[in-house]
Amino acid sequence: MLVHEDAPFNAEPRPSSLAGSAITPLEHFYVRSHGPVPDADPHTWRLHVAGHVDQPLVLTREELLDGRFEEHEVVATLQCAGNRRADLIAVRDIPGEAPWGPGATGTATWRGVRLADVLAVAGVGPVVEHVAFVGVDRSEEATPPQRFGASIPLAKALAQEVLLAHAMNGEPLQPLHGAPLRVVVPGYIGARSVKWLERIELRSEPWDGYFQDTAYRLLATDESPGPGIGTALGEVNLNTAILLPEEGARITAGPVELRGYAFAGAGRGISRVEVSMDRGGTWVRAELLDDQGPWAWRFWRAELELASGEHELLTRAWDGAAATQPEHPETVWNPKGYANTSWARVHVHVDG
Amino acid sequence: MLVHEDAPFNAEPRPSSLAGSAITPLEHFYVRSHGPVPDADPHTWRLHVAGHVDQPLVLTREELLDGRFEEHEVVATLQCAGNRRADLIAVRDIPGEAPWGPGATGTATWRGVRLADVLAVAGVGPVVEHVAFVGVDRSEEATPPQRFGASIPLAKALAQEVLLAHAMNGEPLQPLHGAPLRVVVPGYIGARSVKWLERIELRSEPWDGYFQDTAYRLLATDESPGPGIGTALGEVNLNTAILLPEEGARITAGPVELRGYAFAGAGRGISRVEVSMDRGGTWVRAELLDDQGPWAWRFWRAELELASGEHELLTRAWDGAAATQPEHPETVWNPKGYANTSWARVHVHVDG
Repeated sequence: MLVHEDAPFNAEPRPSSLAGSAITPLEHFYVRSHGPVPDADPHTWRLHVAGHVDQPLVLTREELLDGRFEEHEVVATLQCAGNRRADLIAVRDIPGEAPWGPGATGTATWRGVRLADVLAVAGVGPVVEHVAFVGVDRSEEATPPQRFGASIPLAKALAQEVLLAHAMNGEPLQPLHGAPLRVVVPGYIGARSVKWLERIELRSEPWDGYFQDTAYRLLATDESPGPGIGTALGEVNLNTAILLPEEGARITAGPVELRGYAFAGAGRGISRVEVSMDRGGTWVRAELLDDQGPWAWRFWRAELELASGEHELLTRAWDGAAATQPEHPETVWNPKGYANTSWARVHVHVDG
Repeated sequence: MLVHEDAPFNAEPRPSSLAGSAITPLEHFYVRSHGPVPDADPHTWRLHVAGHVDQPLVLTREELLDGRFEEHEVVATLQCAGNRRADLIAVRDIPGEAPWGPGATGTATWRGVRLADVLAVAGVGPVVEHVAFVGVDRSEEATPPQRFGASIPLAKALAQEVLLAHAMNGEPLQPLHGAPLRVVVPGYIGARSVKWLERIELRSEPWDGYFQDTAYRLLATDESPGPGIGTALGEVNLNTAILLPEEGARITAGPVELRGYAFAGAGRGISRVEVSMDRGGTWVRAELLDDQGPWAWRFWRAELELASGEHELLTRAWDGAAATQPEHPETVWNPKGYANTSWARVHVHVDG
C-alpha cells in the first residue's frame, strides 16, 4: 500500500495491485480515515435510528442481524472523492490534501440488511428529505472537531442497493473498514458510506456537520471552503483509470496490454472504453471484462502497438446513456481537488 | 422557425426566439417528424395497452380522461438527440442528417395522466423490463418503412414524471405535437416521447423497431448503423447553449449580456453555469434564473466586457452531482451526430 498518512491512516494500493482482481482483496482495499480507528465493542455498541421517525429505534447488533431483517448482498465500488487528485495537483498545488492516485477506490461484495427495511420499521416522517449517518469516530480535521457524518437524499436511502453492511468479501467487516457496521451507499462518493455507524437521523435538511456542509463539496475556482459553499458531492461521476502499465513504466517495444477500470456511479453502466496513443486524435476500443452489475466498476483491457520512445497513453469511458468525460485535468481543477473525471493518462518509456 | 425539411416537417426556432421565455411558446417549439402528420380522429382513436400484461386494455379518449386516472402536470424539457449537431458537422460532415442548431429543444407544461397509473390497471407481468410506444405515423425513413416506435426501461416508465399528455402549455395538444395523445418522458431524448401514441407494449426486451434498434444510437467513430450496433440513447446528457448573442452577431463594445439554457436530463439539476471569453482559461459564473424543477432546463444570464474585435464566447454547465461537459465537438463527434454535449460556442464581431 502507498501510505499517504499514518495518523489518521490513509492509504491506497499500487495501481498494479488493484488490477489483479475485479473484486478487490481486503489487503488491497483503500483506507480513507478522518480520525483514529475507534474501538467499537460490538457487545455494547447500539444503532440509533432517530429524528423524524414514528418510532425511534435502539438496536443491538443481535437485534439487527437476528433475521428480523432479510440479508442481502451487493457488489459495489467505493470511490473516494479525491481519487486521482494527483493529476489535479500536477496542474496547480492543492495544499493540505493527499495526492491520491487512481487507487482510492475498490470493489467489494458487501453483505448486510437494507437500510430501507430498517427505516420502514422506524417509520419515515412526512417531512423527511434526507437521511444522515453519524459514526463513532471523532475527527480533528473538522472545524470544530466532531464525529464523522454525512447524509444522502431519502430517495437514495430507500433504494434497494443501500445496505447496512457487516461483512465484506465474505468476511466479517474489519475495524479498519468500519466494524461493527458500515452503511454502504453504492454509486456515491466513499465519504457517504459512513464507517463505525452509530446513529441514523431522518431529517428535512442535509446533515449540517462539517463533512457534509463544508468538506466534500465542489467549489468554483474562486471559492473558499465554508458552510454551504459549492456543490455537495453525491453520485460519483463517470471516470476511468489505466492500472497497467503504471505511470513511468519502462516497457519493451511491440504489443502492450493496457488494463484498467471504468466506473459510472449513477448506475448507468459502462457502454464503451477507448484508449489512445495520439492525445485523443484516434481511439482503439477496449474489451470490456466481467459485468458485476450497475454498482461496480467495469474492468477492461486493450492492446496497443508501441514503438520505442516516450508515449502518453490515454483512456476515456462512455456510460450507458452515452455520456463521456471531460478531456483535461486543467478544465476540472477545483480548490479541494475532488471529482477528477478527466481522461486518464500514463506516461511510459518504450525501449527498442 | 428555421425549417430543415418540409416533408416530413422538421423545424427549430432561432436561438433568440427561444431565449424569450423559460416556458417555450407553442409557436416556437421545435418539431421533429419522421413522417407525415397523421390525421388521428380523436373519436375513433383508441389507446391499446398490450404485451405482457394481466389484462390488455383498449381505451377511448373519454375512458382515459374521464377522471378514472388522476390528472397531473409536469414542466419538462424535450430535446432532440440531434440538438447542436451543426457543431459536429463543422468538424466532419454527417451526410443525410439535419444540421440542427441549439433550438431542437423546448420546455412546456405538459398535462395528462400518469403512465404508471394506466400500467397499474393493465397489470405489469413479471418478465417486463421495457415499455414500448408505437405511434400512428408511418415513416419512410425507416428500413423497412414502419410506424414510429420507441421504448424505455420499466423503472422509468413507472416514474411519476412520465405522462400520457393531452395538453401542452394549457392548450389541447396540437396535431403537430402528437394529438390526440403523446407520451412525455422527461429527461429522455425527444424520440422516446412518442407522438400520436396508439399502442403501449410491455416487453421483456427493448422495442425492436428501427427507431430504437438502429436509429438514435451512439456509434463509435468506426461503426455503421445496424440493428443493435452502438448504445441506445435514453437520458439526455448534461448540455448547455448560448442563445444570445446569436452566432455571427455584430455587437457594440462594452458590457454584453449572454443568455442561454443548461439542461441535465438525468434530473440532477444544474448547480453552476460558467462563461469564458479566453477559450476556457478563465470562467465567469452566470446567474441561474428561475428553477422550474428537475425535468426542465435552467435559463441563465451572464455579463462580459467585450473589446472591439472577433470573440469566441464559451459556456459550460455543472450538474447537481458536480459533473461537467467535454470540451470540444471533435472529441464527441459520432457518425450520426447525436448527443453533442461539448462546451457551447458562439462567435461575435464587436465594433469599437
